[in-house]
Amino acid sequence: MKNDGTMVNAFVPGKGNLSAEDQALVARRAKAMGPAYRLFYETPVHLVRGDGVWLYDKDGNAYLDTYNNVASVGHCHPHVVAATAQQAATFASHTRYLHDTVLDYAERLLAYFPPELSHVMFTCTGSEANDLAFRIARAHTGGTGFIVTENAYHGVTYAIAGMSPSLGEGVPLGEHVRTVAAPDPALMTGDLGAAFAAEVQAAIDDLLRHGIKPAALIVDTIFSSDGVFEGPKGFLQPAVDAIRAAGGLFIADEVQPGFGRTGDAMWGFQRHALLPDMVSLGKPMGNGYPVAGLVLRPEVIAAFGAKARYFNTFGGNAVAAATAMAVLDVLENEGLQENARVVGGAFAAGLRDLASRHQSLGPLRAAGLFLGQDIVTNGAADAHLTARLVNEMREARVLISATGPRANVLKIRPPLVFSMANVDHFLTVFDKVLTRNGA
Amino acid sequence: MKNDGTMVNAFVPGKGNLSAEDQALVARRAKAMGPAYRLFYETPVHLVRGDGVWLYDKDGNAYLDTYNNVASVGHCHPHVVAATAQQAATFASHTRYLHDTVLDYAERLLAYFPPELSHVMFTCTGSEANDLAFRIARAHTGGTGFIVTENAYHGVTYAIAGMSPSLGEGVPLGEHVRTVAAPDPALMTGDLGAAFAAEVQAAIDDLLRHGIKPAALIVDTIFSSDGVFEGPKGFLQPAVDAIRAAGGLFIADEVQPGFGRTGDAMWGFQRHALLPDMVSLGKPMGNGYPVAGLVLRPEVIAAFGAKARYFNTFGGNAVAAATAMAVLDVLENEGLQENARVVGGAFAAGLRDLASRHQSLGPLRAAGLFLGQDIVTNGAADAHLTARLVNEMREARVLISATGPRANVLKIRPPLVFSMANVDHFLTVFDKVLTRNGA
Repeated sequence: MKNDGTMVNAFVPGKGNLSAEDQALVARRAKAMGPAYRLFYETPVHLVRGDGVWLYDKDGNAYLDTYNNVASVGHCHPHVVAATAQQAATFASHTRYLHDTVLDYAERLLAYFPPELSHVMFTCTGSEANDLAFRIARAHTGGTGFIVTENAYHGVTYAIAGMSPSLGEGVPLGEHVRTVAAPDPALMTGDLGAAFAAEVQAAIDDLLRHGIKPAALIVDTIFSSDGVFEGPKGFLQPAVDAIRAAGGLFIADEVQPGFGRTGDAMWGFQRHALLPDMVSLGKPMGNGYPVAGLVLRPEVIAAFGAKARYFNTFGGNAVAAATAMAVLDVLENEGLQENARVVGGAFAAGLRDLASRHQSLGPLRAAGLFLGQDIVTNGAADAHLTARLVNEMREARVLISATGPRANVLKIRPPLVFSMANVDHFLTVFDKVLTRNGA
Repeated sequence: MKNDGTMVNAFVPGKGNLSAEDQALVARRAKAMGPAYRLFYETPVHLVRGDGVWLYDKDGNAYLDTYNNVASVGHCHPHVVAATAQQAATFASHTRYLHDTVLDYAERLLAYFPPELSHVMFTCTGSEANDLAFRIARAHTGGTGFIVTENAYHGVTYAIAGMSPSLGEGVPLGEHVRTVAAPDPALMTGDLGAAFAAEVQAAIDDLLRHGIKPAALIVDTIFSSDGVFEGPKGFLQPAVDAIRAAGGLFIADEVQPGFGRTGDAMWGFQRHALLPDMVSLGKPMGNGYPVAGLVLRPEVIAAFGAKARYFNTFGGNAVAAATAMAVLDVLENEGLQENARVVGGAFAAGLRDLASRHQSLGPLRAAGLFLGQDIVTNGAADAHLTARLVNEMREARVLISATGPRANVLKIRPPLVFSMANVDHFLTVFDKVLTRNGA
């Protein structure tokens, strides 16, 4: 299927129902920030304040945030904000001086990983983390071939945009990149693990046929941009075995599923009982502060570390570390992984209940507070209806978006402090919007 | 000259005079963060607090910071910290919603640029800004060839590390990258502008001979890692003309010289009366908060913007924008560009005065508070003596470092709030250290 690079749920200038003030803001954006930026929704949302799962516009209207996975412990969480402010007022410098905070955080973070994954390196963005993994995989394996799923998104640096097919055909894939079908249980026949591993093996074979040594298979362990494929648990092992047998590494991109979102485990790879060679972290790590990282086995960094140094001016600075530490505090103190499991379970049950009354609700895939709801008409993907639902939800002040190669998967991914009452609110509004659309 | 990748002024594990506590910290770092990280100095500094131009260790000892260009308006400046804290407590989200702060900042920042440079895009790091420039230059020109100076540093993503020869031979340059000699007035004969342009033309010719269309010449406009080459003003124009005649763009990397440091102008390219196609910004932009950006002419983003979108989750978030805005407030309210000019001038004069009494002080190059002081023995570069001076200054609690392809250039680059008294302090200590070394 052709991907012309049009972003799902992107604002189209000249359309929508904007106030004169917001029209002026859109014009200022185009003038100052140029043509490569996109806004969400037919009528973009103009926000001024955030608090927990709520976002507020200029007129004080509250929007239920059922989409943003960055502010994972809730928008503007006071414990996190206080940690940022206190450290920024005290000491903010980098990793070429000794300071305790980054080490305290590194050790605390690593305690959430299996002992084999015993190093962490700090970057500012998930893109930088994946880019560093790319460099390290090449240095360690001597290979240059990378395998990704066909609608994957791993970041925006040159190297990583080149392995992010979801950016569309305007962004060329790297010559050494091969794509495989995502493990969509509706499309792959037979055993899903075997079918996905066969895809990976075919990509390995094609790389080798072109004289390219495989370096790594990288997957988002919940396949966020491919449409949210959460299971069955453990099904990825044969694909990991295949890339290892070919001398390549397995990189788990946990930028979206990580930090407890899937409910069952802190990391998506743990849900699947995998042991990756490298694990990239990002979005929720600092609840919005730009901090990200790469966790890895010591043996894969040995070759790189022997001949190259790594320094990221802002990566692992004291404020980043203090902020990320506060995020772990909240995750633990407020039991957010468990909350994701319980509330996410109720959310999925509620959507299945709606599906019994709304024919447009096709297959649902969910793990914790990461849900992908297919929207269909007569059983077929319906991108048009999906867009209508997303925008009518926005008009009803509930924020979600859509994803997937056919643009028909509602992506539901709220802050982890989402409550049962928030689920009820969502389902009540969604029921009305579906009913109004005869969907 | 071979560059084995050994970092100038790097700590060598097992050496130095560390306390038991710091030895333990170093061991924890190696265990948790792996082999690719480096510390400064024979005996690393263990810091806990920053205030203005001062950094403090655990025992309350104050170090005069004559090196850190990130905390450009001073460590932990209260106005900047307050802006970060206030915005983080209010709204922190990204550029796919309308919010005012990022636009207010974008417009205010662009007002410091010539009108031709009318778009700004936001990233988190200077590496990401240069990586985006790399992608845009390729899309706009259809070329793939890049030209950099022979000890340049532009960042750590895969694409940009491949055009950062200062990272050493362990980090391969891209196949489409050519290096040119830096404009060292001590090594280039005749007119410096013509000589540097001839280097660039030779690189263009070599690219073309290999069938590679040039995309861009990128230079740090004060050649920070090449040894600090600040002038003469205007000398870069012939090189810029050469790349443009070949269909390539000129990218000014202002990550180090930008935001008033050179005293004469807000941007290094303005000192040289150049009009770049793209300008990358970073380090001092948020005084330590991870924010960076790329300013560009609309015509160079047209091709990229028509077929690709750009989104950086944390880039241009509301907190980044509010923090960067506060940095501009301080730069203006405290007259820091003018302070850089005046205090930097006094600093240079003081070093020239010392040079009349210390034979090891060779050529000095300086613009505002960016100074490069060659250390020589019998007129020849002396990396060994340079390292000794850097480390003895550190023992005397004055922080500087060294750079250049021969590792003999003292890199002096303090926060812009550096005062005349700070200059006196530096010169007094430096005089003693030089005298003690018979240098």
